[in-house]
Amino acid sequence: MTVTPGLLKPALKAIAEDIDHSFDLLLPIPGDPRDRLVEAMRYATIGGGKRIRPLLVCATAALFGVSREAAVRVGTAIEAVHVYSLIHDDLPCMDNDALRHGKPTLHVAFDEAAAVLAGDALHDFAFELLSDPATSGDPFVRIELIRTLATSSGMNGMCGGQMMDIVAETSSFDLPTVTRLQQLKTGALLGAAVEMGAILGHAPIEGRSHLRGYARDIGLAFQIADDLLDLEGDEAEAGKALRKDADQGKQTFLSLLGPERAREQARRLVEQAIELLASYGPEADLLRELARFIVERDH
Amino acid sequence: MTVTPGLLKPALKAIAEDIDHSFDLLLPIPGDPRDRLVEAMRYATIGGGKRIRPLLVCATAALFGVSREAAVRVGTAIEAVHVYSLIHDDLPCMDNDALRHGKPTLHVAFDEAAAVLAGDALHDFAFELLSDPATSGDPFVRIELIRTLATSSGMNGMCGGQMMDIVAETSSFDLPTVTRLQQLKTGALLGAAVEMGAILGHAPIEGRSHLRGYARDIGLAFQIADDLLDLEGDEAEAGKALRKDADQGKQTFLSLLGPERAREQARRLVEQAIELLASYGPEADLLRELARFIVERDH
Repeated sequence: MTVTPGLLKPALKAIAEDIDHSFDLLLPIPGDPRDRLVEAMRYATIGGGKRIRPLLVCATAALFGVSREAAVRVGTAIEAVHVYSLIHDDLPCMDNDALRHGKPTLHVAFDEAAAVLAGDALHDFAFELLSDPATSGDPFVRIELIRTLATSSGMNGMCGGQMMDIVAETSSFDLPTVTRLQQLKTGALLGAAVEMGAILGHAPIEGRSHLRGYARDIGLAFQIADDLLDLEGDEAEAGKALRKDADQGKQTFLSLLGPERAREQARRLVEQAIELLASYGPEADLLRELARFIVERDH
Repeated sequence: MTVTPGLLKPALKAIAEDIDHSFDLLLPIPGDPRDRLVEAMRYATIGGGKRIRPLLVCATAALFGVSREAAVRVGTAIEAVHVYSLIHDDLPCMDNDALRHGKPTLHVAFDEAAAVLAGDALHDFAFELLSDPATSGDPFVRIELIRTLATSSGMNGMCGGQMMDIVAETSSFDLPTVTRLQQLKTGALLGAAVEMGAILGHAPIEGRSHLRGYARDIGLAFQIADDLLDLEGDEAEAGKALRKDADQGKQTFLSLLGPERAREQARRLVEQAIELLASYGPEADLLRELARFIVERDH
Protein backbone atom coordinates (compact mmCIF):
# COMPACT_ATOMS: atom_id res chain seq x y z
CA MET A 1 0.00 0.00 0.00
CA THR A 2 1.33 3.43 -0.90
CA VAL A 3 1.26 6.01 1.84
CA THR A 4 -0.16 9.48 1.30
CA PRO A 5 2.85 11.68 2.02
CA GLY A 6 2.67 14.75 4.15
CA LEU A 7 0.31 13.71 6.95
CA LEU A 8 3.05 13.33 9.51
CA LYS A 9 4.67 16.76 9.57
CA PRO A 10 1.48 18.70 10.42
CA ALA A 11 0.47 15.93 12.84
CA LEU A 12 3.77 16.26 14.74
CA LYS A 13 3.33 20.03 14.86
CA ALA A 14 -0.27 19.76 16.08
CA ILE A 15 0.46 17.20 18.78
CA ALA A 16 3.43 19.23 20.05
CA GLU A 17 1.16 22.26 20.43
CA ASP A 18 -1.69 20.29 21.99
CA ILE A 19 0.52 18.54 24.54
CA ASP A 20 2.28 21.77 25.51
CA HIS A 21 -1.10 23.42 25.92
CA SER A 22 -2.42 20.51 27.95
CA PHE A 23 0.50 20.53 30.43
CA ASP A 24 0.27 24.31 30.66
CA LEU A 25 -3.42 24.08 31.54
CA LEU A 26 -3.17 21.12 33.91
CA LEU A 27 -0.07 22.28 35.83
CA PRO A 28 -0.88 25.79 37.05
CA ILE A 29 1.58 27.36 39.52
CA PRO A 30 -0.21 27.06 42.89
CA GLY A 31 1.22 30.29 44.35
CA ASP A 32 2.43 28.71 47.60
CA PRO A 33 5.66 26.99 48.80
CA ARG A 34 4.99 24.17 46.31
CA ASP A 35 5.73 26.54 43.42
CA ARG A 36 9.23 25.20 42.88
CA LEU A 37 7.86 21.66 42.44
CA VAL A 38 5.32 22.70 39.81
CA GLU A 39 7.87 24.95 38.09
CA ALA A 40 10.17 21.92 37.81
CA MET A 41 7.31 19.80 36.44
CA ARG A 42 6.53 22.49 33.86
CA TYR A 43 10.19 22.91 32.90
CA ALA A 44 10.45 19.20 32.09
CA THR A 45 7.11 18.79 30.33
CA ILE A 46 6.49 21.94 28.31
CA GLY A 47 8.31 22.67 25.06
CA GLY A 48 10.36 19.59 24.30
CA GLY A 49 10.31 16.12 22.87
CA LYS A 50 8.82 14.64 19.72
CA ARG A 51 5.60 13.57 21.54
CA ILE A 52 5.66 10.21 19.71
CA ARG A 53 3.61 8.50 22.44
CA PRO A 54 0.77 11.06 22.48
CA LEU A 55 0.78 10.97 18.66
CA LEU A 56 0.41 7.17 18.77
CA VAL A 57 -2.54 7.52 21.19
CA CYS A 58 -4.21 10.15 19.00
CA ALA A 59 -3.56 8.38 15.67
CA THR A 60 -4.90 5.08 17.05
CA ALA A 61 -7.87 6.68 18.80
CA ALA A 62 -8.73 8.50 15.55
CA LEU A 63 -9.20 5.11 13.83
CA PHE A 64 -12.20 4.62 16.09
CA GLY A 65 -13.60 8.14 15.94
CA VAL A 66 -12.51 9.20 19.44
CA SER A 67 -12.58 12.97 20.06
CA ARG A 68 -9.23 14.74 19.80
CA GLU A 69 -9.73 16.23 23.27
CA ALA A 70 -10.05 12.84 25.00
CA ALA A 71 -7.08 11.40 23.09
CA VAL A 72 -4.85 14.39 23.94
CA ARG A 73 -5.72 14.01 27.62
CA VAL A 74 -4.69 10.35 27.59
CA GLY A 75 -1.61 11.29 25.54
CA THR A 76 -0.71 13.85 28.22
CA ALA A 77 -0.86 11.14 30.90
CA ILE A 78 1.42 8.76 29.01
CA GLU A 79 3.80 11.62 28.12
CA ALA A 80 3.95 12.52 31.84
CA VAL A 81 5.18 8.98 32.56
CA HIS A 82 7.69 9.17 29.70
CA VAL A 83 9.01 12.54 30.95
CA TYR A 84 9.23 11.38 34.58
CA SER A 85 11.31 8.38 33.39
CA LEU A 86 13.66 10.70 31.46
CA ILE A 87 14.07 12.99 34.50
CA HIS A 88 15.06 10.07 36.74
CA ASP A 89 17.15 8.44 33.98
CA ASP A 90 19.17 11.66 33.54
CA LEU A 91 20.11 11.83 37.25
CA PRO A 92 23.82 11.63 38.16
CA CYS A 93 23.31 8.21 39.76
CA MET A 94 21.69 6.90 36.55
CA ASP A 95 22.87 8.09 33.11
CA ASN A 96 24.25 11.41 34.41
CA ASP A 97 23.10 13.44 31.40
CA ALA A 98 23.36 17.24 31.43
CA LEU A 99 21.45 17.93 28.20
CA ARG A 100 17.96 16.89 27.08
CA HIS A 101 15.98 18.31 24.16
CA GLY A 102 18.74 20.87 23.75
CA LYS A 103 18.40 22.37 27.23
CA PRO A 104 19.95 21.57 30.63
CA THR A 105 18.39 18.51 32.28
CA LEU A 106 16.12 19.14 35.25
CA HIS A 107 18.64 18.32 37.99
CA VAL A 108 21.07 20.77 36.34
CA ALA A 109 18.51 23.56 35.87
CA PHE A 110 17.00 23.01 39.36
CA ASP A 111 18.70 20.46 41.62
CA GLU A 112 18.66 16.71 42.20
CA ALA A 113 16.05 16.78 44.95
CA ALA A 114 13.68 18.78 42.75
CA ALA A 115 14.32 16.31 39.91
CA VAL A 116 13.49 13.28 42.06
CA LEU A 117 10.32 14.94 43.41
CA ALA A 118 9.14 16.39 40.10
CA GLY A 119 9.55 12.94 38.52
CA ASP A 120 7.54 11.34 41.32
CA ALA A 121 4.84 14.00 41.12
CA LEU A 122 4.52 13.60 37.32
CA HIS A 123 4.20 9.86 37.85
CA ASP A 124 1.20 10.47 40.13
CA PHE A 125 -0.15 13.18 37.86
CA ALA A 126 -0.57 10.59 35.07
CA PHE A 127 -2.77 8.38 37.24
CA GLU A 128 -4.67 11.35 38.65
CA LEU A 129 -5.45 12.44 35.11
CA LEU A 130 -6.58 8.99 33.96
CA SER A 131 -8.73 8.38 37.04
CA ASP A 132 -10.58 11.68 36.57
CA PRO A 133 -14.12 11.31 35.16
CA ALA A 134 -13.24 14.04 32.63
CA THR A 135 -11.01 11.49 30.86
CA SER A 136 -13.91 9.14 30.16
CA GLY A 137 -17.39 8.86 31.61
CA ASP A 138 -16.98 5.08 31.51
CA PRO A 139 -15.15 3.75 34.61
CA PHE A 140 -14.29 0.52 32.74
CA VAL A 141 -12.38 2.59 30.17
CA ARG A 142 -10.58 4.53 32.90
CA ILE A 143 -9.59 1.36 34.75
CA GLU A 144 -8.32 -0.27 31.57
CA LEU A 145 -6.27 2.82 30.73
CA ILE A 146 -4.74 2.88 34.22
CA ARG A 147 -4.00 -0.84 34.22
CA THR A 148 -2.32 -0.62 30.82
CA LEU A 149 -0.17 2.33 31.86
CA ALA A 150 0.83 0.93 35.29
CA THR A 151 1.71 -2.48 33.82
CA SER A 152 3.78 -1.04 30.98
CA SER A 153 5.76 1.33 33.19
CA GLY A 154 6.51 -0.79 36.29
CA MET A 155 8.74 -3.77 37.06
CA ASN A 156 7.24 -5.81 34.21
CA GLY A 157 7.69 -2.92 31.77
CA MET A 158 9.84 0.21 31.59
CA CYS A 159 11.41 0.04 35.09
CA GLY A 160 12.28 -3.63 34.52
CA GLY A 161 13.92 -2.71 31.20
CA GLN A 162 15.86 0.12 32.83
CA MET A 163 17.28 -2.27 35.42
CA MET A 164 18.21 -4.72 32.62
CA ASP A 165 19.94 -1.80 30.91
CA ILE A 166 22.02 -1.16 34.04
CA VAL A 167 22.86 -4.86 34.33
CA ALA A 168 23.85 -4.80 30.62
CA GLU A 169 26.74 -2.46 31.44
CA THR A 170 28.51 -5.25 33.30
CA SER A 171 27.04 -8.36 31.61
CA SER A 172 27.21 -9.76 28.12
CA PHE A 173 23.66 -10.11 26.79
CA ASP A 174 22.77 -12.13 23.68
CA LEU A 175 20.38 -10.89 20.98
CA PRO A 176 17.18 -12.36 22.52
CA THR A 177 18.05 -10.74 25.88
CA VAL A 178 18.83 -7.36 24.26
CA THR A 179 15.53 -7.65 22.37
CA ARG A 180 13.67 -8.38 25.61
CA LEU A 181 15.47 -5.47 27.32
CA GLN A 182 14.38 -3.04 24.61
CA GLN A 183 10.85 -4.43 24.47
CA LEU A 184 10.55 -3.59 28.18
CA LYS A 185 12.55 -0.35 28.29
CA THR A 186 10.96 1.50 25.36
CA GLY A 187 8.61 -0.97 23.65
CA ALA A 188 6.24 -1.40 26.58
CA LEU A 189 5.28 2.28 26.80
CA LEU A 190 5.04 2.70 23.00
CA GLY A 191 2.81 -0.38 22.95
CA ALA A 192 0.76 1.08 25.79
CA ALA A 193 0.21 4.26 23.75
CA VAL A 194 -1.37 2.28 20.90
CA GLU A 195 -3.31 0.09 23.34
CA MET A 196 -4.66 3.13 25.21
CA GLY A 197 -5.83 4.69 21.94
CA ALA A 198 -7.66 1.44 21.18
CA ILE A 199 -9.16 1.29 24.69
CA LEU A 200 -10.46 4.87 24.34
CA GLY A 201 -12.04 3.77 21.05
CA HIS A 202 -13.71 0.74 22.63
CA ALA A 203 -11.85 -1.35 20.01
CA PRO A 204 -12.78 -5.03 20.25
CA ILE A 205 -10.07 -7.11 21.96
CA GLU A 206 -9.45 -9.21 18.80
CA GLY A 207 -8.89 -6.08 16.71
CA ARG A 208 -6.21 -4.95 19.11
CA SER A 209 -3.71 -7.75 18.48
CA HIS A 210 -2.69 -6.35 15.07
CA LEU A 211 -2.29 -2.91 16.58
CA ARG A 212 -0.25 -4.42 19.40
CA GLY A 213 1.97 -6.14 16.81
CA TYR A 214 2.38 -2.83 15.00
CA ALA A 215 3.47 -1.18 18.26
CA ARG A 216 5.89 -4.00 19.10
CA ASP A 217 7.55 -3.77 15.68
CA ILE A 218 7.89 0.00 15.58
CA GLY A 219 9.15 -0.08 19.19
CA LEU A 220 12.08 -2.30 18.24
CA ALA A 221 12.69 -0.35 15.03
CA PHE A 222 12.68 2.84 17.10
CA GLN A 223 15.38 1.43 19.39
CA ILE A 224 17.58 0.26 16.52
CA ALA A 225 17.24 3.72 14.96
CA ASP A 226 18.20 5.23 18.32
CA ASP A 227 21.28 3.02 18.48
CA LEU A 228 22.24 4.11 14.95
CA LEU A 229 21.70 7.77 15.82
CA ASP A 230 23.81 7.28 18.95
CA LEU A 231 26.61 6.08 16.65
CA GLU A 232 26.16 8.30 13.61
CA GLY A 233 24.03 11.24 14.73
CA ASP A 234 24.77 14.90 15.30
CA GLU A 235 24.81 15.96 18.97
CA ALA A 236 23.49 19.45 18.25
CA GLU A 237 20.51 18.08 16.32
CA ALA A 238 19.85 15.34 18.88
CA GLY A 239 19.97 17.89 21.72
CA LYS A 240 21.71 15.35 23.97
CA ALA A 241 25.05 13.59 24.44
CA LEU A 242 25.71 10.76 21.96
CA ARG A 243 28.24 7.92 21.54
CA LYS A 244 27.53 6.77 25.10
CA ASP A 245 26.75 3.11 24.34
CA ALA A 246 30.00 2.46 22.48
CA ASP A 247 31.98 4.32 25.16
CA GLN A 248 30.48 2.08 27.84
CA GLY A 249 30.99 -1.09 25.77
CA LYS A 250 27.30 -1.93 26.21
CA GLN A 251 25.73 -4.69 24.08
CA THR A 252 23.09 -3.20 21.78
CA PHE A 253 21.38 -4.27 18.54
CA LEU A 254 24.15 -2.41 16.82
CA SER A 255 27.08 -4.05 18.58
CA LEU A 256 25.50 -7.47 18.07
CA LEU A 257 24.33 -7.06 14.44
CA GLY A 258 26.65 -4.41 13.03
CA PRO A 259 25.28 -1.20 11.40
CA GLU A 260 24.28 -2.75 8.07
CA ARG A 261 22.28 -5.66 9.43
CA ALA A 262 20.80 -3.44 12.15
CA ARG A 263 19.59 -0.92 9.57
CA GLU A 264 18.16 -3.73 7.43
CA GLN A 265 16.41 -5.22 10.48
CA ALA A 266 14.84 -1.85 11.36
CA ARG A 267 13.51 -1.47 7.81
CA ARG A 268 12.09 -4.99 7.87
CA LEU A 269 10.35 -4.30 11.20
CA VAL A 270 8.76 -1.15 9.77
CA GLU A 271 7.47 -3.03 6.69
CA GLN A 272 6.08 -5.71 8.99
CA ALA A 273 4.41 -3.05 11.16
CA ILE A 274 2.79 -1.49 8.10
CA GLU A 275 1.55 -4.89 6.89
CA LEU A 276 -0.18 -5.37 10.22
CA LEU A 277 -2.33 -2.32 9.39
CA ALA A 278 -3.58 -3.97 6.16
CA SER A 279 -7.17 -4.23 7.39
CA TYR A 280 -7.34 -0.43 7.71
CA GLY A 281 -7.82 2.03 4.85
CA PRO A 282 -6.44 5.54 4.47
CA GLU A 283 -7.54 6.33 8.05
CA ALA A 284 -4.37 4.47 9.18
CA ASP A 285 -2.02 6.39 6.87
CA LEU A 286 -0.72 8.52 9.72
CA LEU A 287 0.32 5.36 11.62
CA ARG A 288 2.03 4.13 8.43
CA GLU A 289 3.93 7.39 7.97
CA LEU A 290 4.88 7.39 11.63
CA ALA A 291 6.37 3.90 11.25
CA ARG A 292 8.54 5.08 8.35
CA PHE A 293 9.54 8.25 10.18
CA ILE A 294 10.88 6.19 13.04
CA VAL A 295 13.71 4.71 10.94
CA GLU A 296 14.23 7.72 8.71
CA ARG A 297 14.41 10.48 11.34
CA ASP A 298 17.76 12.17 11.89
CA HIS A 299 17.19 13.08 15.57
CA MET B 1 -16.01 6.56 76.01
CA THR B 2 -13.59 4.10 77.57
CA VAL B 3 -11.45 2.10 75.23
CA THR B 4 -11.08 -1.66 75.54
CA PRO B 5 -7.36 -2.03 76.08
CA GLY B 6 -5.28 -4.59 74.30
CA LEU B 7 -6.73 -4.56 70.78
CA LEU B 8 -3.82 -2.67 69.28
CA LYS B 9 -0.84 -4.88 70.09
CA PRO B 10 -2.20 -8.02 68.39
CA ALA B 11 -3.54 -5.89 65.53
CA LEU B 12 -0.07 -4.40 64.89
CA LYS B 13 1.44 -7.88 64.96
CA ALA B 14 -1.20 -9.28 62.59
CA ILE B 15 -0.93 -6.45 60.07
CA ALA B 16 2.89 -6.66 60.06
CA GLU B 17 2.63 -10.37 59.23
CA ASP B 18 -0.09 -9.89 56.62
CA ILE B 19 1.71 -7.07 54.81
CA ASP B 20 5.03 -8.94 54.80
CA HIS B 21 3.23 -11.98 53.42
CA SER B 22 1.43 -9.88 50.81
CA PHE B 23 4.63 -8.27 49.48
CA ASP B 24 6.36 -11.66 49.52
CA LEU B 25 3.57 -13.17 47.43
CA LEU B 26 3.14 -10.25 45.03
CA LEU B 27 6.85 -9.59 44.39
CA PRO B 28 8.30 -12.93 43.28
CA ILE B 29 11.87 -12.90 41.95
CA PRO B 30 11.41 -13.19 38.15
CA GLY B 31 14.61 -15.17 37.55
CA ASP B 32 15.92 -12.91 34.77
CA PRO B 33 18.10 -9.77 34.58
CA ARG B 34 15.37 -7.85 36.43
CA ASP B 35 16.14 -9.81 39.60
CA ARG B 36 18.15 -7.00 41.17
CA LEU B 37 15.19 -4.63 40.81
CA VAL B 38 12.75 -6.99 42.51
CA GLU B 39 15.32 -7.88 45.19
CA ALA B 40 15.62 -4.15 45.95
CA MET B 41 11.81 -3.81 46.09
CA ARG B 42 11.62 -6.77 48.47
CA TYR B 43 14.46 -5.44 50.66
CA ALA B 44 12.61 -2.17 51.15
CA THR B 45 9.11 -3.58 51.65
CA ILE B 46 9.46 -6.82 53.62
CA GLY B 47 10.18 -6.86 57.34
CA GLY B 48 10.11 -3.26 58.47
CA GLY B 49 7.90 -0.38 59.48
CA LYS B 50 4.92 -0.10 61.80
CA ARG B 51 2.43 -0.54 58.92
CA ILE B 52 0.23 2.24 60.33
CA ARG B 53 -1.34 2.99 56.92
CA PRO B 54 -2.39 -0.60 56.16
CA LEU B 55 -3.71 -0.86 59.73
CA LEU B 56 -5.81 2.27 59.15
CA VAL B 57 -7.19 0.76 55.93
CA CYS B 58 -8.03 -2.53 57.66
CA ALA B 59 -9.48 -0.98 60.84
CA THR B 60 -11.69 1.38 58.79
CA ALA B 61 -12.74 -1.30 56.31
CA ALA B 62 -13.64 -3.59 59.21
CA LEU B 63 -16.23 -1.00 60.38
CA PHE B 64 -18.14 -1.82 57.18
CA GLY B 65 -17.63 -5.59 57.16
CA VAL B 66 -15.05 -5.66 54.35
CA SER B 67 -13.07 -8.92 54.08
CA ARG B 68 -9.61 -8.89 55.63
CA GLU B 69 -8.12 -10.10 52.34
CA ALA B 70 -9.43 -7.15 50.31
CA ALA B 71 -8.37 -4.64 52.97
CA VAL B 72 -4.84 -6.09 53.19
CA ARG B 73 -4.49 -5.86 49.41
CA VAL B 74 -5.42 -2.16 49.46
CA GLY B 75 -3.18 -1.69 52.52
CA THR B 76 -0.31 -3.23 50.54
CA ALA B 77 -0.83 -0.71 47.73
CA ILE B 78 -0.76 2.29 50.06
CA GLU B 79 2.24 0.88 51.95
CA ALA B 80 4.04 0.50 48.59
CA VAL B 81 3.57 4.24 48.03
CA HIS B 82 4.72 5.02 51.57
CA VAL B 83 7.84 2.84 51.15
CA TYR B 84 8.69 4.30 47.72
CA SER B 85 8.52 7.78 49.25
CA LEU B 86 10.88 6.73 52.07
CA ILE B 87 13.36 5.21 49.57
CA HIS B 88 13.50 8.43 47.55
CA ASP B 89 13.47 10.60 50.69
CA ASP B 90 16.51 8.73 52.07
CA LEU B 91 18.60 9.39 48.92
CA PRO B 92 21.80 11.43 49.30
CA CYS B 93 20.27 14.30 47.31
CA MET B 94 17.25 14.36 49.66
CA ASP B 95 17.62 13.58 53.40
CA ASN B 96 20.78 11.48 52.94
CA ASP B 97 19.82 8.89 55.56
CA ALA B 98 21.86 5.72 55.96
CA LEU B 99 19.57 3.91 58.41
CA ARG B 100 15.87 3.03 58.18
CA HIS B 101 13.97 0.55 60.38
CA GLY B 102 17.28 -0.38 61.92
CA LYS B 103 18.92 -1.53 58.69
CA PRO B 104 20.94 0.21 55.94
CA THR B 105 18.76 2.28 53.60
CA LEU B 106 18.22 0.90 50.11
CA HIS B 107 20.77 3.07 48.33
CA VAL B 108 23.38 1.97 50.90
CA ALA B 109 22.50 -1.73 50.73
CA PHE B 110 22.19 -1.68 46.90
CA ASP B 111 23.10 1.57 45.12
CA GLU B 112 21.45 4.87 44.23
CA ALA B 113 20.29 3.79 40.78
CA ALA B 114 18.60 0.70 42.23
CA ALA B 115 16.98 2.91 44.88
CA VAL B 116 15.56 5.35 42.32
CA LEU B 117 14.25 2.51 40.13
CA ALA B 118 12.89 0.36 42.97
CA GLY B 119 11.02 3.42 44.27
CA ASP B 120 9.57 4.11 40.82
CA ALA B 121 8.60 0.46 40.35
CA LEU B 122 6.88 0.32 43.76
CA HIS B 123 4.99 3.48 42.83
CA ASP B 124 3.62 1.71 39.72
CA PHE B 125 3.07 -1.51 41.64
CA ALA B 126 0.55 0.30 43.88
CA PHE B 127 -1.57 1.35 40.90
CA GLU B 128 -1.20 -2.03 39.21
CA LEU B 129 -2.49 -3.67 42.37
CA LEU B 130 -5.45 -1.32 42.75
CA SER B 131 -6.47 -1.54 39.08
CA ASP B 132 -6.52 -5.35 39.19
CA PRO B 133 -10.05 -6.85 39.29
CA ALA B 134 -8.86 -9.05 42.19
CA THR B 135 -8.89 -5.89 44.38
CA SER B 136 -12.61 -5.31 43.83
CA GLY B 137 -15.06 -6.62 41.26
CA ASP B 138 -16.58 -3.12 41.15
CA PRO B 139 -14.68 -0.80 38.75
CA PHE B 140 -16.17 2.26 40.50
CA VAL B 141 -14.51 1.15 43.73
CA ARG B 142 -11.18 0.56 41.98
CA ILE B 143 -11.30 3.96 40.28
CA GLU B 144 -12.13 5.72 43.55
CA LEU B 145 -9.27 3.93 45.32
CA ILE B 146 -6.82 4.94 42.56
CA ARG B 147 -8.01 8.52 42.49
CA THR B 148 -7.72 8.85 46.26
CA LEU B 149 -4.20 7.40 46.27
CA ALA B 150 -2.92 9.41 43.28
CA THR B 151 -4.33 12.68 44.63
CA SER B 152 -2.92 12.15 48.13
CA SER B 153 0.57 11.26 46.94
CA GLY B 154 1.19 13.73 44.08
CA MET B 155 1.81 17.47 43.86
CA ASN B 156 -1.36 18.27 45.84
CA GLY B 157 -0.41 15.76 48.54
CA MET B 158 2.78 14.04 49.71
CA CYS B 159 5.14 15.27 46.95
CA GLY B 160 3.88 18.82 47.44
CA GLY B 161 4.54 18.51 51.19
CA GLN B 162 8.03 17.15 50.58
CA MET B 163 8.87 20.13 48.42
CA MET B 164 7.51 22.47 51.13
CA ASP B 165 9.73 20.61 53.59
CA ILE B 166 12.79 21.34 51.40
CA VAL B 167 11.78 24.99 51.09
CA ALA B 168 11.35 25.09 54.90
CA GLU B 169 15.11 24.52 55.32
CA THR B 170 15.81 27.96 53.93
CA SER B 171 12.55 29.81 54.73
CA SER B 172 10.83 30.79 57.94
CA PHE B 173 7.34 29.26 57.95
CA ASP B 174 4.62 30.30 60.38
CA LEU B 175 2.37 27.83 62.22
CA PRO B 176 -0.40 27.71 59.57
CA THR B 177 2.21 27.02 56.86
CA VAL B 178 3.92 24.31 58.94
CA THR B 179 0.48 22.80 59.58
CA ARG B 180 -0.29 22.82 55.86
CA LEU B 181 3.15 21.33 55.10
CA GLN B 182 2.53 18.44 57.50
CA GLN B 183 -1.03 17.92 56.31
CA LEU B 184 0.36 17.38 52.83
CA LYS B 185 3.58 15.54 53.68
CA THR B 186 2.21 12.91 56.06
CA GLY B 187 -1.45 13.76 56.64
CA ALA B 188 -2.60 13.25 53.06
CA LEU B 189 -1.51 9.60 52.85
CA LEU B 190 -2.79 8.78 56.37
CA GLY B 191 -6.09 10.39 55.38
CA ALA B 192 -6.10 8.37 52.15
CA ALA B 193 -5.69 5.16 54.17
CA VAL B 194 -8.88 5.87 56.14
CA GLU B 195 -10.68 7.06 53.01
CA MET B 196 -9.68 3.94 51.07
CA GLY B 197 -10.98 1.71 53.85
CA ALA B 198 -14.28 3.60 53.68
CA ILE B 199 -14.38 3.32 49.86
CA LEU B 200 -13.82 -0.46 50.06
CA GLY B 201 -16.73 -0.56 52.51
CA HIS B 202 -19.00 1.44 50.20
CA ALA B 203 -19.40 3.90 53.08
CA PRO B 204 -21.83 6.69 52.21
CA ILE B 205 -20.06 9.98 51.36
CA GLU B 206 -21.65 11.82 54.32
CA GLY B 207 -20.39 9.16 56.75
CA ARG B 208 -16.86 9.68 55.52
CA SER B 209 -16.41 13.27 56.70
CA HIS B 210 -16.08 12.24 60.37
CA LEU B 211 -13.57 9.56 59.39
CA ARG B 212 -11.68 12.11 57.32
CA GLY B 213 -11.61 14.45 60.32
CA TYR B 214 -10.30 11.59 62.47
CA ALA B 215 -7.52 10.97 59.93
CA ARG B 216 -6.64 14.68 59.71
CA ASP B 217 -6.34 14.97 63.49
CA ILE B 218 -4.28 11.83 64.03
CA GLY B 219 -2.08 12.84 61.09
CA LEU B 220 -1.10 16.10 62.75
CA ALA B 221 -0.76 14.41 66.15
CA PHE B 222 1.48 11.82 64.49
CA GLN B 223 3.75 14.54 63.13
CA ILE B 224 4.00 16.35 66.46
CA ALA B 225 4.86 13.04 68.12
CA ASP B 226 7.49 12.49 65.44
CA ASP B 227 8.97 15.94 66.13
CA LEU B 228 9.09 15.13 69.87
CA LEU B 229 10.72 11.75 69.19
CA ASP B 230 13.22 13.47 66.93
CA LEU B 231 14.14 15.66 69.92
CA GLU B 232 13.82 13.23 72.82
CA GLY B 233 13.89 9.75 71.28
CA ASP B 234 16.45 6.99 71.34
CA GLU B 235 18.24 6.41 68.01
CA ALA B 236 18.61 2.65 68.57
CA GLU B 237 14.89 2.23 69.24
CA ALA B 238 13.90 4.55 66.37
CA GLY B 239 16.18 2.64 63.98
CA LYS B 240 17.11 5.88 62.22
CA ALA B 241 19.13 9.07 62.75
CA LEU B 242 17.46 11.64 65.06
CA ARG B 243 17.99 15.30 66.05
CA LYS B 244 18.06 16.28 62.38
CA ASP B 245 15.41 19.02 62.49
CA ALA B 246 17.09 20.98 65.27
CA ASP B 247 20.49 20.57 63.60
CA GLN B 248 19.10 22.03 60.38
CA GLY B 249 17.30 24.85 62.20
CA LYS B 250 14.05 23.84 60.47
CA GLN B 251 10.73 25.30 61.68
CA THR B 252 8.55 22.52 63.10
CA PHE B 253 5.55 22.34 65.44
CA LEU B 254 8.11 21.88 68.16
CA SER B 255 10.28 24.88 67.35
CA LEU B 256 7.18 27.05 66.98
CA LEU B 257 5.22 25.81 70.03
CA GLY B 258 7.92 24.48 72.36
CA PRO B 259 7.79 20.89 73.72
CA GLU B 260 5.13 21.45 76.40
CA ARG B 261 2.55 23.15 74.16
CA ALA B 262 3.34 20.74 71.33
CA ARG B 263 2.71 17.73 73.56
CA GLU B 264 -0.52 19.30 74.83
CA GLN B 265 -1.63 20.02 71.25
CA ALA B 266 -0.97 16.42 70.18
CA ARG B 267 -3.07 15.13 73.11
CA ARG B 268 -5.89 17.51 72.23
CA LEU B 269 -5.84 16.37 68.59
CA VAL B 270 -6.09 12.74 69.67
CA GLU B 271 -9.07 13.48 71.96
CA GLN B 272 -10.72 15.35 69.11
CA ALA B 273 -10.07 12.43 66.72
CA ILE B 274 -11.65 10.00 69.19
CA GLU B 275 -14.70 12.26 69.60
CA LEU B 276 -15.20 12.13 65.83
CA LEU B 277 -15.76 8.37 66.17
CA ALA B 278 -18.65 8.92 68.62
CA SER B 279 -21.26 7.52 66.25
CA TYR B 280 -19.45 4.15 66.21
CA GLY B 281 -19.64 1.52 68.94
CA PRO B 282 -16.93 -0.90 70.08
CA GLU B 283 -16.24 -1.79 66.43
CA ALA B 284 -14.20 1.45 66.27
CA ASP B 285 -12.16 0.69 69.42
CA LEU B 286 -9.12 -0.26 67.36
CA LEU B 287 -9.15 3.16 65.66
CA ARG B 288 -9.44 4.76 69.13
CA GLU B 289 -6.50 2.79 70.50
CA LEU B 290 -4.49 3.59 67.39
CA ALA B 291 -5.09 7.31 67.92
CA ARG B 292 -3.75 7.07 71.50
CA PHE B 293 -0.79 4.96 70.41
CA ILE B 294 0.26 7.66 68.00
CA VAL B 295 1.13 10.11 70.78
CA GLU B 296 2.25 7.54 73.32
CA ARG B 297 4.63 5.47 71.16
CA ASP B 298 8.33 5.66 71.95
CA HIS B 299 9.57 4.95 68.37
